[in-house]
Amino acid sequence: MVRKLEKRSGCIQHTLAILGDKWTALIVRDLSEAPLRFCDLESSLEGISPRTLSQRLDKLELEGVIVKRLYCEHPPRSRYHLTRKGSELQEILIKMADWGARHSSS
Amino acid sequence: MVRKLEKRSGCIQHTLAILGDKWTALIVRDLSEAPLRFCDLESSLEGISPRTLSQRLDKLELEGVIVKRLYCEHPPRSRYHLTRKGSELQEILIKMADWGARHSSS
Repeated sequence: MVRKLEKRSGCIQHTLAILGDKWTALIVRDLSEAPLRFCDLESSLEGISPRTLSQRLDKLELEGVIVKRLYCEHPPRSRYHLTRKGSELQEILIKMADWGARHSSS
Repeated sequence: MVRKLEKRSGCIQHTLAILGDKWTALIVRDLSEAPLRFCDLESSLEGISPRTLSQRLDKLELEGVIVKRLYCEHPPRSRYHLTRKGSELQEILIKMADWGARHSSS
């Protein structure tokens, strides 16, 4: 008998509501490596529209998964960082990447 | 610097294509505890329609995540089991459940 996966019902749904779509997971993946600017993410996430990226970033900020920080450069630039809560999603993504690597044929 | 999350691009997407929707994750969660009949899953997954459950089960069978086995009982009954590939999704769900438990407010 495996240990009960959810101690409390709704926890998996809560996580999937944040991480369940393709783009969100990939944004967290990219920010795991370094803080990035909007345009960095746009070029890394091939096929995403600026509007969708903007919506996903807003949602992740609202959820406390990422934070936008202004850098005093010339010109001033802002970069997105993972928060502590966001960093804790990395463990899930690592497991997802491992499973995908084992079971995708290409 | 964290280790690169994906050794090969597309692995996270591959996993999310299977596990990304709410019902699929919950079906795998329930089958992690025991093989179940269609009607067991229907009553466990509150709000799912028989048609949606049937579609999800077909997709998971096609993906090799679950298998349907006929039991020689009177009347004969079939139960859904996780395959080895499906069992390997448990690690992801455990991490999701833990993250959700830490960060959902209710």
